[in-house]
This record gives sequence, C-alpha cells and structure tokens, in this order.
Amino acid sequence: MKSLEWLGSKLRFIDQTKLPAEEIYIVTDDFRIVGDAIRKLSIRGAPALGVAVAYGAALAALENSNENSSSFKNKLTSVIIELKSTRPTAVNLFWSLERINKVLDIFIISGVELTVAKIIAEAIDIHGEDIAMCNAIGINGAEIVPQDATILTHCNTGALATGGDGTAQNVIVTAHKSGKNIKVYAGETRPLLQGARLTAWELMKLGIDVTLITDSAAAFLMQQKKIDLVITGADRITMQGFVANKVGTYNLAVNAKMHGIPFYIAAPTSTIDTKIEVGDEIIIEERSENEITEYFGKRTAPVGVKVYSAAFDITPPDLITGIITDRKIFLPPYSNSLSVLK
Amino acid sequence: MKSLEWLGSKLRFIDQTKLPAEEIYIVTDDFRIVGDAIRKLSIRGAPALGVAVAYGAALAALENSNENSSSFKNKLTSVIIELKSTRPTAVNLFWSLERINKVLDIFIISGVELTVAKIIAEAIDIHGEDIAMCNAIGINGAEIVPQDATILTHCNTGALATGGDGTAQNVIVTAHKSGKNIKVYAGETRPLLQGARLTAWELMKLGIDVTLITDSAAAFLMQQKKIDLVITGADRITMQGFVANKVGTYNLAVNAKMHGIPFYIAAPTSTIDTKIEVGDEIIIEERSENEITEYFGKRTAPVGVKVYSAAFDITPPDLITGIITDRKIFLPPYSNSLSVLK
Repeated sequence: MKSLEWLGSKLRFIDQTKLPAEEIYIVTDDFRIVGDAIRKLSIRGAPALGVAVAYGAALAALENSNENSSSFKNKLTSVIIELKSTRPTAVNLFWSLERINKVLDIFIISGVELTVAKIIAEAIDIHGEDIAMCNAIGINGAEIVPQDATILTHCNTGALATGGDGTAQNVIVTAHKSGKNIKVYAGETRPLLQGARLTAWELMKLGIDVTLITDSAAAFLMQQKKIDLVITGADRITMQGFVANKVGTYNLAVNAKMHGIPFYIAAPTSTIDTKIEVGDEIIIEERSENEITEYFGKRTAPVGVKVYSAAFDITPPDLITGIITDRKIFLPPYSNSLSVLK
Repeated sequence: MKSLEWLGSKLRFIDQTKLPAEEIYIVTDDFRIVGDAIRKLSIRGAPALGVAVAYGAALAALENSNENSSSFKNKLTSVIIELKSTRPTAVNLFWSLERINKVLDIFIISGVELTVAKIIAEAIDIHGEDIAMCNAIGINGAEIVPQDATILTHCNTGALATGGDGTAQNVIVTAHKSGKNIKVYAGETRPLLQGARLTAWELMKLGIDVTLITDSAAAFLMQQKKIDLVITGADRITMQGFVANKVGTYNLAVNAKMHGIPFYIAAPTSTIDTKIEVGDEIIIEERSENEITEYFGKRTAPVGVKVYSAAFDITPPDLITGIITDRKIFLPPYSNSLSVLK
C-alpha cells in the first residue's frame, strides 16, 4: 500500500479519513486539493506531510508552467506560503517547502521550464529520501526490540504517515520481519482514532498481532506488566530533546517512566528542528472542537460545551529513553547528542 | 433532574444512553426492563445501580404478590440472583440486594403481603440513604477544595450515577454552591463517553464552568499546571485502599502523582468491600468489543481486530491522597483508617 504516489504529472493519495471502512485513492493535478486533504487529515503524518507538500508545489509548478519567470516565481511563492499554513506543528512540512523554495530561487533565472523540472525532481527526491529514511529507522531501531516483545504505540506512524514504510511502526515491522516474536497494543488515539482506524488496519494487513485499546487503558496494561516497550513517532523535536507528538504521547511517557518501561521516539532527522531548544517554542495546533464533540456527524457532547482540543503535546527529554532516527539512535543527554546536527 | 424515581408501583428512570441528545425517561413495572437497562448502561454508576436493583426487586415483589409464600420466596430469590448478574464490579449492587434478601428471609414467615411492603420500604430506604450519602459526601469533601480550584474528573459521578446528587461530582457541586471559584475539566471517558455525554451535560445544567478533554490530554494539562485537584468516584474499594473505578482512573492517578497534584476518591462507605484486602481480588468486567470498535453503529476499527476492553482499572493506595465518604475523609495508611469499618 502506497499512501502517496507521483504519476508523472499527478499525485495519487489514499484518503485516510475513509479508512478502515473504505480504501479510496484520489488522483489530482491540483495543489489546492492536496492542501485541503492535509487540512482535513486525508493526508497526515509528519513525514507524509513533507512529501505531500513537495508534490503539491510540483503540481503548482506544472499548473503555472506557461507563466513568465516573474509571475511564476510570485505564484509559486504564494503557493508555498499557502501550503505552509495547512498544519502548524510538523516541521517536515516547512523543511520540505524550504527545499522547494531554494530550488525556485536558484533555477528561476534559468527559466520556467527548467525550474518546473527541478521542482518536480526535488519533490521526487524528497519522497525517495523519505523511503530510504523509513528503511534506515526500521533497521536502526531493531536493536532495541527484544526477541519477544509486546510493544505499545500511539497514533499512526506507518506507511500511511510517511512516503515509505513508516517510522515508529517500521521499527516494529522490521523487528517482526526479522523473526522476532512481536505483539502490539495500539492506542486508539482520540479524537480522530488514527490508532484504531489506521495502525490496526496496517498491522493486520502485515500479519502482525495487534490489540486495540482505549488510550487511558495503557496505564492499566503497564501495571499488569503487559507492555515491554513504548515507541511513538514525533512531529517536531527540539535540540534539547523535547518532543511534540500526537496528544497522549506525554501521557504514555509519564506512565512508562512510572512503570520502568523503555520509551522511545522514532522519527527522521528532518523532524529535529535545529532552530529551537525547548518545548515551549513549538506551536501546538488546536483543532476544531467538533473533533471531540461529534463523531462521524453524531453529536456526543452537549451543544455549547467548551473544549480543549490540542492536537499535540510535549514530552520532555528526561522521559525519553532514546530517539531512533535514520542516522542513529540518539541517547540522552540530548543537548549533547543532538548537537552534531547543528 | 432525578435519575431514578419510585412512583408507588413503578420505577421511572432516565435512559442515559440517549444523553445528551435526548432526555428520555422510561416508566416500568417490570424488573426485567430494569435489568436490561443496567446491562446496556441506560442505568449506570455504582450507587445508582444499588438503588436501581433494590427497586427492581420491589417490582418483582409486586409482580409476585399473589403467589404463596414458598413460591414467592423462590421467585424473589431467583430475581435477586438475576439482578446480581447484571454487572460484576460495583459492590453496591450486591450490598443492596443482600439487604433485600435479608428482608425476604425475615418477613416471609409473616406472609407475602407484609414481605412485599417491607421490600418496597427497604428499596425506598436504600434510595433515601443514597440521597443522604450524596449530601454527606458533598459536605465532607468540600474542605479539600481550595477557594479557587480547577478540578479534573473522570467518567460520571453526578445525579445520573446515584440516587441523589452524586459522589465525586457532588464534592465539586457543593464547593461551587458554597461560593468557591470552581472550574472543571471533564475527561470524555472512552469508550462510552460518560464524561462527554453525562458529566458535561450535568455540570452545564448546574451552571458550572466545564471544559471537555480527551482522556489522554489530562497529562498535558497537568504539565501546564492547569489542574489543582483530581477527584473521581469508585466502584469498589478494598480494605487496604485499592480502588476499582472506570478504566482511565489509574492513568490519572499516576499522572497526578508524577505532577504533585492531590488525587481523591469520593464514594459511599457501601463501596468499601470489607471482605477483600487487595485489588487482585476484584473482578474486572470486560465489556463488548463493539464499545471500542464501533461508535453509535459506525465501525471505526478494522473488522476482526483484537480488543482489550476492561471497563475498570485498579488504583493502588499509594497514589490516593484521601477517600472522601459519607462518614468522613479516610486518609492513608488505609489499612489502618479503613479498619474501623470491619
């Protein structure tokens, strides 16, 4: 299953909001449709967002290929700004669009035709690097997975969340494929149930033993010594090792600490934001209240109730056993180990 | 709003599964309808279950009032067994039915007519004691609530969960009514969303400032120092102070401990099971997988996925600041303080 596929002049992507009931793919040549898909989480997952916005910019480049250089540059610049505004927390999206912007800056003096080709090539490169990144994370992470392991994960970090085979989930999948005896508990991940809808669906497709739980049942499983390891993804990591990830991640990290269970983050190095030091510097996206007060259009909370709807939380470095990346596993203290990335 | 009301020969109760969309009351003279309502959580909350099964037995007594003594006793005995089987974790239900059984044993030799009257009177007494218990818990608990307090609660422990004004929620409501500046965060309480559907609805009706959150966002709020106090109810408490309550309670207790936030349980003394010492002795009800894989009939997880669906978890005594009851606030060590109840 490929969550994102470049068809030469169109992007094909799976509509994640329809899973697991329906496996529907959308083919588009319109960057606006890509932007909308990101906003409503039809495309989601930090690495996948990075790939998707690059292809979005590539579609915009194709759409404006008959413009003159000046007009092309203006239009692409505004598309890049628009795509940057779709989700505020994941750094991959900004990082990816900065690469596109750099290509635009360098090649526009050589003409629109070349620039369009270079932007498409850059998007394909970003995707290719993402696939390689997923493989490297899987391989690097495998060493921390025991021969027999019951692993808890949160949200979705699989093929659906990336351009490749996943981040945290690919550590699990790679360990499983290498012959280890792996069981997974997937937290359903309220409010949008990415764990129930996406992770359980992906792991079942891959033949991995997965059990679905409500998010706050994880602590009780830990108390019963049923969890050996927790691995989640990340949307942004600071230089001191503060991790922004799907709300509920911090909750699991606290519980893992309290129960003496290793807690790992798995993410591409592109997730590490070398410009910031601590968690307070990360913008936490608050999403629509309807995601909590309604479910598939069915109202489940009183009309008018106030809602706190942070989509992400911040896990501090002292709760994180290690950060598995495509380069290596970074260990604490992160202010030292991550400094090589500056 | 009265969740349970005895109408002389019928029971009137609110169908909690329809809230908050619809406020529907059911009037019945059939104990089987009461049993079904308990099984499918139309009636829920440990103290409310105790009241409801007593009225269920009263309805059965009325239904069988033309039987001879021997047949009446046999029929009532089997009704009591049937009502005991509706939910396995809340002790109130067993405690209440044991009282009915004792009335049956004592008065049946004096004839069916008197026994029916005495069973009805006992059920009304149980209800009356429940109302008084709620009031006493509210008053006893008020002392631990600061003048300005943001309180986190879980599941529903209000009028809907009791025959009176609630347990943990009545501590909050009583503090509010006494003029304290109270804000509440209500955990939505997956899978059945009692926090979203019931607690938010009750608190809004009472004019109390309530904000709804997903369960695993609570930790992040604690990290941000937005929670002063956690109060939840209990379904069963052991003599050493282990507390069975809605799954997710233990998760909050761990987080409260980690963040230095007081964590209180509020429950009637009838919830304290003097026959057992530790949490392992409590039967944890596992509910239907559909409660997690479907939502209002909409499938949200892959067909065939395994599910862990414990309805309750166990919080150990070392995480509990105090147990607020209708008698007093019991403090640790609970093996000492609770021993007066033996």
